Amino acid sequence: MSVHAHEAAYYKMSEPMTSKPDALEDAIRPTTLIEPRRLRTALGIDLHIASETFQHTGSFKFRAAYNLARLVAEETILTASSGNFGQALAYACKLLNKNAIIVMPETSAQVKIDAVREHGGRVEPVDVTVKSRAERVAELAKEHPEALVASAYDDPRVIDGNASLGWELAPHDFDDVIVPVGGGGLSAGIVQGIRAHGNDRTQVIGAEPLIGNDAARSLREGRIVRNEREPQTIADGARTVSLGEHNWAILKDGLAGIVEVPEAHIEDAVRLAFLRANLKVEPTGALSIGALLTEPERFEGRNVCCVVTGGNVDPEVYRRLIGGG
Amino acid sequence: MSVHAHEAAYYKMSEPMTSKPDALEDAIRPTTLIEPRRLRTALGIDLHIASETFQHTGSFKFRAAYNLARLVAEETILTASSGNFGQALAYACKLLNKNAIIVMPETSAQVKIDAVREHGGRVEPVDVTVKSRAERVAELAKEHPEALVASAYDDPRVIDGNASLGWELAPHDFDDVIVPVGGGGLSAGIVQGIRAHGNDRTQVIGAEPLIGNDAARSLREGRIVRNEREPQTIADGARTVSLGEHNWAILKDGLAGIVEVPEAHIEDAVRLAFLRANLKVEPTGALSIGALLTEPERFEGRNVCCVVTGGNVDPEVYRRLIGGG
Repeated sequence: MSVHAHEAAYYKMSEPMTSKPDALEDAIRPTTLIEPRRLRTALGIDLHIASETFQHTGSFKFRAAYNLARLVAEETILTASSGNFGQALAYACKLLNKNAIIVMPETSAQVKIDAVREHGGRVEPVDVTVKSRAERVAELAKEHPEALVASAYDDPRVIDGNASLGWELAPHDFDDVIVPVGGGGLSAGIVQGIRAHGNDRTQVIGAEPLIGNDAARSLREGRIVRNEREPQTIADGARTVSLGEHNWAILKDGLAGIVEVPEAHIEDAVRLAFLRANLKVEPTGALSIGALLTEPERFEGRNVCCVVTGGNVDPEVYRRLIGGG
Repeated sequence: MSVHAHEAAYYKMSEPMTSKPDALEDAIRPTTLIEPRRLRTALGIDLHIASETFQHTGSFKFRAAYNLARLVAEETILTASSGNFGQALAYACKLLNKNAIIVMPETSAQVKIDAVREHGGRVEPVDVTVKSRAERVAELAKEHPEALVASAYDDPRVIDGNASLGWELAPHDFDDVIVPVGGGGLSAGIVQGIRAHGNDRTQVIGAEPLIGNDAARSLREGRIVRNEREPQTIADGARTVSLGEHNWAILKDGLAGIVEVPEAHIEDAVRLAFLRANLKVEPTGALSIGALLTEPERFEGRNVCCVVTGGNVDPEVYRRLIGGG
C-alpha cells in the first residue's frame, strides 16, 4: 500500500462535514504549538513542540480512536492497548454511544487503567509474562463475536485519524518533524498527512527507544524486523514487538531516518521539558526531545518540531524522573 | 482613577502596529485555552482553563513587563519581584536592548533566580527578615539614578499589559473568570481588558490565599487594608502586603468577589491539575482552581474560566505537592 493510497480517504475526512456530528475535525482538539525559549537555549536548536498532552484523553491517540470508532459499523470494539489508545477508544466510544473493551498489561500505569474505566471502558487486565495481549484478545473475541477487534496502530482508519496531526503541521514547513515510534501508527499518519497537504519538503524522523529498536532495524534491513519480546523501555507506549504492516508500507519510504534513544535520554527529556518548557510529558511523549539529546549535531541549524505525544504518566514515575539529574 | 480612564491607552495598544516591532501584540503569546474534561468530571463544573504557563518566561508577567519596558524612556529598569516579574522584565529588557536589575528575596525558588540570570537580568538578593524589598530598592535607586524604579503591579502600564489577557478572554463570554490576586496587577488588567472589549456580563472573581487575605478584607471594608507582613503562603507570587493604588481603583468596583483559598486547597489544586489536566502549575497559578475547591457551590452550573498564571515552580516543591493526598 502506498502513501497515496491513503490520500483519498484523508481528503474525504478533511472535507467540511458540518452535517455529520461525528466528523473527526469537529471532535479533536487542534495540537498545541509551543516555542520553548529556555529549552531552545539549553539545546541550541530552533525548536518547536507540538504537544498532544491537552488532546482529549491526554494523548494523540484520541485522533485515531475516534476516527476508527466513527467509521466502523460494530457497536462494540475490543482492543489491546498499553493505555493511551484504550483510554482514547473508551472516550471515543462513549461520545459515539458504543462499547469499548480494553486488554491492558497488569503493569500499565495505574492512572491509565483508572482513566479507561472513568471514560466508561471495560478493562481486561493480562499478565504478559504468562500470555500475550494478542492471546487474551483472541480469547475475548470468541466470547464477543459481535465485537470488532481493533489494532491500536495497524489499521488505515487509525493512520487516517493520526494524519490529521500531519495535516495541521504541514503548513508550518518545518525542516524536520520528530515523532515517537512504537507500532508506527502516528509516524505513518504524520507522513501521510504532511504529504497529503502538499508539503514534500518537511522530513519526518522517528524517535524510538534504543532497547526496542525494531523500527530502526527494519529501515536498515528493508523489511519488518521484530523484537523477541515487548521491550521493557520506560517509554511504555513504545513497548511494541514490531511495526504494523499498514504502517510499514508508508514508513519504509516515508521516514527520513530513526534516532535510537537510550533510556537515560528519555528520562532527561522528561525532566528538561518540566524544567524548561513547563510541559508535563510522559516518557513515550519525550522520545522526540530525547532524540535531540542523542543526536544534537543532526539537528543543528534546522527548524525542528518535536511531537510530544501525550502526558499521562504515573505520579510516582514522574516524581522520580523530575528529581533526577 | 476609573476603569474607563485606562481604556484609551488599551485601545491604542491593541490597534495594529505593524510598523512598530516592539508592539505588545506582536511580542506576547496568546493564552492557551484548555477544556480539561477529567477535571470537569472531578469538580462537576463547566470549566475552562486559560493557561499562561507557556507564555514567554512561563507566566503572564511577560505581558506586563514587556508593555512597561517598551513604553518607558529609561534604559535601565530596577524592580522588586518574588520571581516571575523579574524573569519577565529581564527577558523583555533583553528583547528591547535594555538593562534589568531585580531585587529578589533570598527565599525565592531557585529556578526563578536562575531564570532571571539566564535572561540577562542582574539579581540583587535581599534577606526580607532584615530589610524589606522596598528598602533595598531604595538603596539601589540611589546607586543608579538613571534607572526607572518599576512596580510589578501598581502601574497603569503594567495593568495595560495584563489587560491584553482580559481582551483575549472577553469574546468567550464566560459567566465567571477566576483570577489569582497578589498585588492586583493581573486582576485589574483582566477587568479592564474584558470591559474595554465591550463585555459587561462576565464576572471577574479574585482568588487569594486565606492567610494573606488583604484584598478580600479591602473589598469588605471599602479601602486598602494591609497585611502586617508578607504572608508566607505557598503561593509565593501572592506574598504581597497590599493591593496597589492603581489596582484598587479598578478592583473596588470591578471585582464581583474574592474567594479566600486555604493553603491545603492551593496544594490540592496543583495536584489535580497534574493528575487530571496534564498541566504543570505553580502554586500561585493554582489559586483559581483552588477557589473551585473552596467554594464549589458558588460555581455550580456556571461556565467558568480559571486563569492559571504560571508554571515556574521549584522541582522539589512540585515533587512534594504531586506526591501528597
